[in-house]
Amino acid sequence: MFLPAIWLPIGQRRPSPLTQATENRYNRSLGEIATYELESTMEHNLPHTISLLTRTPAALDALLRDLPETWTFQNEGEKTWSPFDVVGHLIHGERTDWMPRLRMVLQFGETQAFAPFDRWGHVRETQGKSLGQLLDEFARLRSENLSELRALGLRQEDLARRGRHPALGIVTLSELLATWAVHDLTHLHQVARVMAHQYRETVGPWNRYLGVLQCTGHSSPS
Amino acid sequence: MFLPAIWLPIGQRRPSPLTQATENRYNRSLGEIATYELESTMEHNLPHTISLLTRTPAALDALLRDLPETWTFQNEGEKTWSPFDVVGHLIHGERTDWMPRLRMVLQFGETQAFAPFDRWGHVRETQGKSLGQLLDEFARLRSENLSELRALGLRQEDLARRGRHPALGIVTLSELLATWAVHDLTHLHQVARVMAHQYRETVGPWNRYLGVLQCTGHSSPS
Repeated sequence: MFLPAIWLPIGQRRPSPLTQATENRYNRSLGEIATYELESTMEHNLPHTISLLTRTPAALDALLRDLPETWTFQNEGEKTWSPFDVVGHLIHGERTDWMPRLRMVLQFGETQAFAPFDRWGHVRETQGKSLGQLLDEFARLRSENLSELRALGLRQEDLARRGRHPALGIVTLSELLATWAVHDLTHLHQVARVMAHQYRETVGPWNRYLGVLQCTGHSSPS
Repeated sequence: MFLPAIWLPIGQRRPSPLTQATENRYNRSLGEIATYELESTMEHNLPHTISLLTRTPAALDALLRDLPETWTFQNEGEKTWSPFDVVGHLIHGERTDWMPRLRMVLQFGETQAFAPFDRWGHVRETQGKSLGQLLDEFARLRSENLSELRALGLRQEDLARRGRHPALGIVTLSELLATWAVHDLTHLHQVARVMAHQYRETVGPWNRYLGVLQCTGHSSPS
């Protein structure tokens, strides 16, 4: 169950003498998940978003580097992506999507639409490169982008600033930054699914128990 | 497109002077994905399975350690799991599922069914522990289990040995080992989805573009 965050203003947060961790477990044990969600997703927490964005390159590196190519170069069929392609796509996003769009919002607001994102732009990014090189490049670009983001010193009120997406219309900085993080997760989710696909017959009768093999939630880029 | 691996016997593999990497890219560029899949998923490659199993603890560690609890302690609603729960579940599998079942196959074959797996066994595993402790414990147990697996020196013909699953009936060692790896992926896939869920409103109109937010492929344990 998910309740819109806006229903409980900051001033109505329940004060608690417990640590966050203890409170989480307490709430969970009482089945008060919905209440807890209501409080914690109330407003976009930029440091939390940055924490996640910081970790994605290392997580993909730990998962993919030097893995046999059975896992990293195969996809789910025609016009689908391998984990190698996904890392290329993430690199392309670092170069052309997130920070360029953030700068557009700060500079032009709603008056100028973002450039459309090229969902096949990774083909250019990956040509002649190894997966190890791509993982290095993604880590470097992400680190540079997060340094730039931190240096901007965005305040909570800045997150409400508005820009214009070429297809979606008006969007906020908060939505852009949250999407950057969830975009990482959508591709981590995709990488796990693509790799699992390679063994969908190999697991035999267990295939019906493995959620990843039932997933049809194909990722679309932002 | 996925063709059953068995359709092309080993002897009919196309000899190739190219390195695997070059061949992969060549095949991909010609749209010969199906052919390549056909060849490479033909038989269970145990070293490839072990390569993946080796990496999961480090990948989850890189993603989750010291991340704000907004990401790691929240779930998708009642009776669903947080990333913290998932790591507990993976620990429980290391203790009671994979290697114990493998030993059962080697010792009893089809004559004795595996003990059913307790899908809420992680509640006991996680009590009073921090996520950091769970990540350490998962890494240690996985490492010990893979050492034991390597020490068994299983040959290709051993992978055809048969055991009895309490619900699925006859299964092979090959299927058990492949399932161990895909089970890691199903839970990585789940962790990405559960984390993304926390921002499903925060991303605003982008939610329709983010595949992970459309996923309904809930994981079931083995």
